[in-house]
Amino acid sequence: MIIVLKSRAPQKKTDELIDWLRSKQLDVHVSVGHYQTVLGLVGDTSRVDTDLLTGLEIVEQVQRISEPFKMANRKFHEEDTCVSAGPFRIGAGSFAFIAGPCSVENEEQIISVAKAVKEAGATALRGGAFKPRTSPYDFQGLRADGIELLLEAKKETGLPIVTEIMNAAHLPLFEQVDVIQVGARNMQNFELLKELGRVNKPILLKRGLANTLKELLMSAEYILAGGNEQVILCERGIRTFETYTRNTLDLSAVPVLKELSHLPVVIDPSHATGVSRYVPSMALAAAAAGADGLMLEVHGDPAHALCDGPQSLTPEQFASLTKQVNKVRKALSEG
Amino acid sequence: MIIVLKSRAPQKKTDELIDWLRSKQLDVHVSVGHYQTVLGLVGDTSRVDTDLLTGLEIVEQVQRISEPFKMANRKFHEEDTCVSAGPFRIGAGSFAFIAGPCSVENEEQIISVAKAVKEAGATALRGGAFKPRTSPYDFQGLRADGIELLLEAKKETGLPIVTEIMNAAHLPLFEQVDVIQVGARNMQNFELLKELGRVNKPILLKRGLANTLKELLMSAEYILAGGNEQVILCERGIRTFETYTRNTLDLSAVPVLKELSHLPVVIDPSHATGVSRYVPSMALAAAAAGADGLMLEVHGDPAHALCDGPQSLTPEQFASLTKQVNKVRKALSEG
Amino acid sequence: MIIVLKSRAPQKKTDELIDWLRSKQLDVHVSVGHYQTVLGLVGDTSRVDTDLLTGLEIVEQVQRISEPFKMANRKFHEEDTCVSAGPFRIGAGSFAFIAGPCSVENEEQIISVAKAVKEAGATALRGGAFKPRTSPYDFQGLRADGIELLLEAKKETGLPIVTEIMNAAHLPLFEQVDVIQVGARNMQNFELLKELGRVNKPILLKRGLANTLKELLMSAEYILAGGNEQVILCERGIRTFETYTRNTLDLSAVPVLKELSHLPVVIDPSHATGVSRYVPSMALAAAAAGADGLMLEVHGDPAHALCDGPQSLTPEQFASLTKQVNKVRKALSEG
Amino acid sequence: MIIVLKSRAPQKKTDELIDWLRSKQLDVHVSVGHYQTVLGLVGDTSRVDTDLLTGLEIVEQVQRISEPFKMANRKFHEEDTCVSAGPFRIGAGSFAFIAGPCSVENEEQIISVAKAVKEAGATALRGGAFKPRTSPYDFQGLRADGIELLLEAKKETGLPIVTEIMNAAHLPLFEQVDVIQVGARNMQNFELLKELGRVNKPILLKRGLANTLKELLMSAEYILAGGNEQVILCERGIRTFETYTRNTLDLSAVPVLKELSHLPVVIDPSHATGVSRYVPSMALAAAAAGADGLMLEVHGDPAHALCDGPQSLTPEQFASLTKQVNKVRKALSEG
Repeated sequence: MIIVLKSRAPQKKTDELIDWLRSKQLDVHVSVGHYQTVLGLVGDTSRVDTDLLTGLEIVEQVQRISEPFKMANRKFHEEDTCVSAGPFRIGAGSFAFIAGPCSVENEEQIISVAKAVKEAGATALRGGAFKPRTSPYDFQGLRADGIELLLEAKKETGLPIVTEIMNAAHLPLFEQVDVIQVGARNMQNFELLKELGRVNKPILLKRGLANTLKELLMSAEYILAGGNEQVILCERGIRTFETYTRNTLDLSAVPVLKELSHLPVVIDPSHATGVSRYVPSMALAAAAAGADGLMLEVHGDPAHALCDGPQSLTPEQFASLTKQVNKVRKALSEG
Repeated sequence: MIIVLKSRAPQKKTDELIDWLRSKQLDVHVSVGHYQTVLGLVGDTSRVDTDLLTGLEIVEQVQRISEPFKMANRKFHEEDTCVSAGPFRIGAGSFAFIAGPCSVENEEQIISVAKAVKEAGATALRGGAFKPRTSPYDFQGLRADGIELLLEAKKETGLPIVTEIMNAAHLPLFEQVDVIQVGARNMQNFELLKELGRVNKPILLKRGLANTLKELLMSAEYILAGGNEQVILCERGIRTFETYTRNTLDLSAVPVLKELSHLPVVIDPSHATGVSRYVPSMALAAAAAGADGLMLEVHGDPAHALCDGPQSLTPEQFASLTKQVNKVRKALSEG
Repeated sequence: MIIVLKSRAPQKKTDELIDWLRSKQLDVHVSVGHYQTVLGLVGDTSRVDTDLLTGLEIVEQVQRISEPFKMANRKFHEEDTCVSAGPFRIGAGSFAFIAGPCSVENEEQIISVAKAVKEAGATALRGGAFKPRTSPYDFQGLRADGIELLLEAKKETGLPIVTEIMNAAHLPLFEQVDVIQVGARNMQNFELLKELGRVNKPILLKRGLANTLKELLMSAEYILAGGNEQVILCERGIRTFETYTRNTLDLSAVPVLKELSHLPVVIDPSHATGVSRYVPSMALAAAAAGADGLMLEVHGDPAHALCDGPQSLTPEQFASLTKQVNKVRKALSEG
Repeated sequence: MIIVLKSRAPQKKTDELIDWLRSKQLDVHVSVGHYQTVLGLVGDTSRVDTDLLTGLEIVEQVQRISEPFKMANRKFHEEDTCVSAGPFRIGAGSFAFIAGPCSVENEEQIISVAKAVKEAGATALRGGAFKPRTSPYDFQGLRADGIELLLEAKKETGLPIVTEIMNAAHLPLFEQVDVIQVGARNMQNFELLKELGRVNKPILLKRGLANTLKELLMSAEYILAGGNEQVILCERGIRTFETYTRNTLDLSAVPVLKELSHLPVVIDPSHATGVSRYVPSMALAAAAAGADGLMLEVHGDPAHALCDGPQSLTPEQFASLTKQVNKVRKALSEG
């Protein structure tokens, strides 16, 4: 960490700051220039609050050199992490296809989709029971009943299930759930993240609509720091001014996150684009970029398509897509 | 609401859709063009889920004409709402100065700030007890103890207090709190909003970092629909590419929100700019634009400034600012 | 195009508007609802100025159904366009590798890079002679001399050359240039676009930093409408709040542009990410997404790397990348 | 400027870099830490190309401490600049009201608007002759004829005129124009800026849709560095995800630009909001924030409103607004 002091910082204040930093077990290297003094801090700066420092009257600028996340950081954990739950595996060479409908609607629907996506190559079933909706008047999901139906589908097909939590108070309902999802809108619901740090199952953490990758990693750090080492990072599109797609899928997240962290990275092109026609090319791109998995909306029965979002693939489209994705992955792995 | 059908939408599917819409108590006006058919819906469309409609195979586009919020909508509630809590008033002509430190730190600090801001014209005391922090390693606030200290300051000065909630499970701690704040990161924590809809005290709802004004109003609608009619809307800066300021204060929020809704609008220039030197001009601008109040960071004792953010005013700066703000308001009210 | 009238639009004004629209050779379908009247326009609406209509007192909203671009529109030109210049081909199945240094610096440099990239599979040589720089004090390129050196490299290697124009007055210097590039900052320099519409060679048009895909297509339309049908669209990253990458590469541009238009689409991951380590994965992703070509920064001689940007690949990295890209393309083309 | 070297930077390369920097007349202060070496540069770093440095293999990060603009910088020019053209004055205490229609349409229109805005307090007349339009099919302005008509209006009313240039080749047409405007889309048309640096009249430079304030100042620097010291900075809204307003007016630009630079700052709320109902409150806010002037769209004759944008005020609204703005300015200037 580098602290640039203001050009007229009084010596007394400067010395006080240096003493205070040293009291925090940090080495402080002082470089005095004509116009400014620069302090270089060496040691564990992840616990130094840059906002506090920036707030000091004598400070011009504070610049982190090392990243503020530690347990998520590849520097301290070189190998890729493989996150697993029963037969489900993602990361360190295992590629995951997490597929299913936007919302769980009824037993017939979820079981027929589950069978269809399993047949087509899915390694996990997704489905929303608790649905975050912008409007209080929109369908809020089947909630507890939705979880029950997902567990039915799991029993029927053996597929591990992934579903979203919106409230730590609902955790008892998630006991049989294999992977708990944190939605984009809750990425910085720190109280929820802390609770999930005490849970003993994988957490799929979605990037917020306007959050940086550093913030995503800091939110992962909340979970890891709580003791839960099973975190999957998910890019699902960020908000920009473009309107042809619902959000802008930031695929650079893949190489950036893989470089900075050892955690697996999954891409959700369905929510990112909001348009099913654009999903296959973005899914192939994600695989080519080196993602560890895909999260895709697939609806089961075109006859009931009223309740599926415009971003859903049919089971046939999904089956064809898994084959294409595997071809791309195979081509790239053959040295 | 207008639904544009695809150019080759089969008649049978079109008729089914029209029947289904009519079964929802909506009038459907059909306009058949050479290339497309347009359905105009009249009735209470706030409960129609546009995502579902957009997902239909035969639909090209769905366009809302009327706003999806109802209780927050000025069309159904022409007069300005005045939100109050004890002596605190905001809206319908009452202007609020909500001032205080970023975080509550100790008894001496919060009481001395409270006295200072009261003296300088504040109508409420703000102070963070539960602090949302990007990093799990940063100071998380004094939490329950912080609330206790705020209540001490209230007893000492008579100032109503405003403080942030991060978890519905903490509600019992907020019983004596006058106004409960929902932070930007929780603006779409719908489970929390639902709980606050059942609370009988004002909620100050901050706009999320990348949320539209429509989404802010929809989140207010969650609270209002729950039965709590006391909502204050707060603009606190949105995320853009600009870097000289921490966020970009969107002051157009004032005329837009005042036009669309009857709820009071408060502006937080401290968080928006992140730089105390820029706060006074943005506060004056907010008052000139017609805001109903200001939320400002003021630190009490420069000697302990280490823990105050770079966006805090001194009590002297705050006192001088309240005078200027009142001058602007007076100049504009004199016809 | 759909025009929604305000609820209290006077009949006389409404009739005047309808007459005026019909005088523009448009069919107007009127749909009268309880609360609003909707006009559906059929005919060539690309020449209707939506700003003018929106400005009318009686108009609530104007919504285009058909796209405002015509010559760039796939609806009126179903087959993919192949743009060519001498041996250079892009689109309709031809994939282009456009590679070279950020700036042309001297004869030795550009010729050695040209040879290296040709050897590694490049189908065209890029290199900046006129350089748009944020600061007037930064290196502005070799300008006319740079073009000369590019032509030397072309003579030496046979590679077609692609280089940027910043001023229509420089057009005479570009006579031997194969493909003229319009940079992101000039995407809406309409005067320049009009001039390039009169030129008889391919134009590579880069998307502006904050421009929508519709605006990119409208800028292409300026060139096409002028008579030049050889336009290549280029996505090179848009500006967001993310900071690990210089810009955010919007790869969804590929399926969106390929759906809306027949023009070839090239991706520039070098400028988009600004970091050479992230370029290969983004290049592979672009190929998997269905792009028609890649534009890549390659520097020739590591010993002179001082003048190359942090986003440049070495010739070895580029050679390895072209092989990988071809593998992905082959895997996907094998049905 | 601070250069952080990578942790394993070889000594030889480090020494070469230091020598090279010293050869540029810069003092280099070396601070060696356990994990990284930091170079602090002192001297005129505005001519150091940070991209070149960032591109070096041994460099981790480059951080400017001093701003890269010099002539626009308040540090080197403490007093406010007053830009003037005939009777027109802006900055250093002079407040400007620049008003007029979006486009010049015909003699009657422009002269009647000119008279109306002069009567209402305008200090300059604006009007578009060359119009940048997204679509090649939209009205492109009267071009040279429009300039003629503006000059007629100037003769008739004595109001100085402000109008946009889109092409340096048109400069001869602007000889009698008082203030030349550079539109948002041409803010980084560096070739045009260079030409305007050689012109002897004020340039009103609009911020680009997605440009930072630093980039705006760098573009001003292009003009200043060419010898033209008369630059007016204009904020006119930036592009965000918000849709109720056309753009997001970034009023923090006022205190930031006034702090960093001595140049006058004008605000254009008409283009920023795109909605005339929102213009007055944003104009008052701009005045309260300390802007040096306003640029407003006013249309003359409601009977011909077809050609005016939805953001135009009537002359009556403009007259009432100038009075209110003056009240705010008076209230704030009275100590």
